[in-house]
Amino acid sequence: MSITVVGSVAFDNIESPAGRRDRCLGGAATYFSLAASFFTDVRVIAVVGDDFGPEQEAVFKARNIDTRGIEHAPGKCFLWEGSYLDNINEAKTQLTELNVFACFEPKIPAAYADSDFLFLANIDPVLQRRVRDAMPHVKLVAGDTMNYWIKDHRDALLQVLNGLDVLLINDTEARMLAERNSLVKAARAIMELGPNYLVIKHGEYGATLFHKNLAQDKGAELRAPALPLEEVIDPTGAGDSFAGGFFGFLASQPELSLTTFRRAMFYGSVMGSFACERFGTERLQQLTRAQIDARFNVFRELTHID
Amino acid sequence: MSITVVGSVAFDNIESPAGRRDRCLGGAATYFSLAASFFTDVRVIAVVGDDFGPEQEAVFKARNIDTRGIEHAPGKCFLWEGSYLDNINEAKTQLTELNVFACFEPKIPAAYADSDFLFLANIDPVLQRRVRDAMPHVKLVAGDTMNYWIKDHRDALLQVLNGLDVLLINDTEARMLAERNSLVKAARAIMELGPNYLVIKHGEYGATLFHKNLAQDKGAELRAPALPLEEVIDPTGAGDSFAGGFFGFLASQPELSLTTFRRAMFYGSVMGSFACERFGTERLQQLTRAQIDARFNVFRELTHID
Repeated sequence: MSITVVGSVAFDNIESPAGRRDRCLGGAATYFSLAASFFTDVRVIAVVGDDFGPEQEAVFKARNIDTRGIEHAPGKCFLWEGSYLDNINEAKTQLTELNVFACFEPKIPAAYADSDFLFLANIDPVLQRRVRDAMPHVKLVAGDTMNYWIKDHRDALLQVLNGLDVLLINDTEARMLAERNSLVKAARAIMELGPNYLVIKHGEYGATLFHKNLAQDKGAELRAPALPLEEVIDPTGAGDSFAGGFFGFLASQPELSLTTFRRAMFYGSVMGSFACERFGTERLQQLTRAQIDARFNVFRELTHID
Repeated sequence: MSITVVGSVAFDNIESPAGRRDRCLGGAATYFSLAASFFTDVRVIAVVGDDFGPEQEAVFKARNIDTRGIEHAPGKCFLWEGSYLDNINEAKTQLTELNVFACFEPKIPAAYADSDFLFLANIDPVLQRRVRDAMPHVKLVAGDTMNYWIKDHRDALLQVLNGLDVLLINDTEARMLAERNSLVKAARAIMELGPNYLVIKHGEYGATLFHKNLAQDKGAELRAPALPLEEVIDPTGAGDSFAGGFFGFLASQPELSLTTFRRAMFYGSVMGSFACERFGTERLQQLTRAQIDARFNVFRELTHID
């Protein structure tokens, strides 16, 4: 079943211990849709500027991603510049130019209306809510957010959470959103705000799945590991790639059981691990499904005992 | 098969968000031997002062731990005071009084000579080496260390590493010891120094097992999760309890295969999780093997997918 994703398509200037690359094609919707495209049909809603040309379009087309919802506006694409020189796990933002993204008004093509899955990548919660309301018949809605919206746009964000089935955030964001230090208590508090499922991402340590009907003695439903990598080239977009693998796998399955969600966590981790291996979306652009399934087995072996 | 452990037996004053407790019976050898005692026979080598009386002795006796190697010296026990008020994952040391521990000279009772397993808890590497050399016929030697020895006693520590089969340390210590940021590269470098197996502990995120003959594409052998706990009462000794569960399980098994090491990682995590549930060694003192096995299954379910 197909997924519609709304979010940013951007250019990233990235500096890491492995070197520097300018104007990598990035943005949450790009990472998400590339990762999800290995599992199911993906349709993107975003806005780009004059600097998004045939070369960038071809990246989406090569993966059969529907780009009819990518609006072309006069001006430049969203530009982000970040450095991982101090800490490979956390970018230091050097520059953010919103450009055409500053006036983003998501427009949903009629052809997207029959999507069964909706992913609201990290954008203004007012826009997330608007897209969610315009697609009331979807089967499953997942979303992401960040510290900025949690801190300064809490009311709008609460409106979004109320309409989500699955929220994906990181440790710090979960603690900030719930105003609690214990991750387990934070998870319970966040699920009270709407989502039945919560994925908390721990960067190099993997991710944890929680759900509302969890037995009191369990703490969490599942912990998926991250792959211990020889060298992280560029962790930009790892979280969005995780979301793409996770949600893409869910959308490809006949049934949304807990077993499906558990497997989806591992596919999320797999896609996150690939994203880190090259700059920008380079690795995702060159992947094959066979490589994904081979790594899925590596992950399984990494956590399974006889 | 029986384990001999050499390390500290101490009193701890502990402050955490859950409250404050003074003079908890602690020390690495105490946590380790209590945890390991659920799997096999344990013999302790340590030194205590006049303030170690029948009440403390009874804690070891209740778990059938051999205390003939605990020397009674004039003076007071090692006293440590730490606070988790700022960060539940890292103690801020408020006070360290070495007392009788300052002149610790490990003496190995003749009755311990037939031990098959030896654990060198975190003490001066010169003493670790001396005990290791005095027990040349043991089947498996594991050890722990800390940043202080890595930074200022590197030569003595390298002598210890050379005689170890298994080293257990945390992320920060591994990076410091190997002078490398990538954990995978640090692990390879550390195993070059001696140990065939390396366990890197990640606190609330679990632990990773590496071994020397790891395939290049694997990164690590196994990642064991930590249990997401509603509330961490006191993380003191969680690492030593992990070591006790891990090494105790290994010593209880007929064969030291990779499968055994993988399962041992999960038993280590189980014991570490229990240690955090009450102040000091309280929880370990009241455990049953049935509770341990039940939690082992919770851990397995937490990471296994169908």
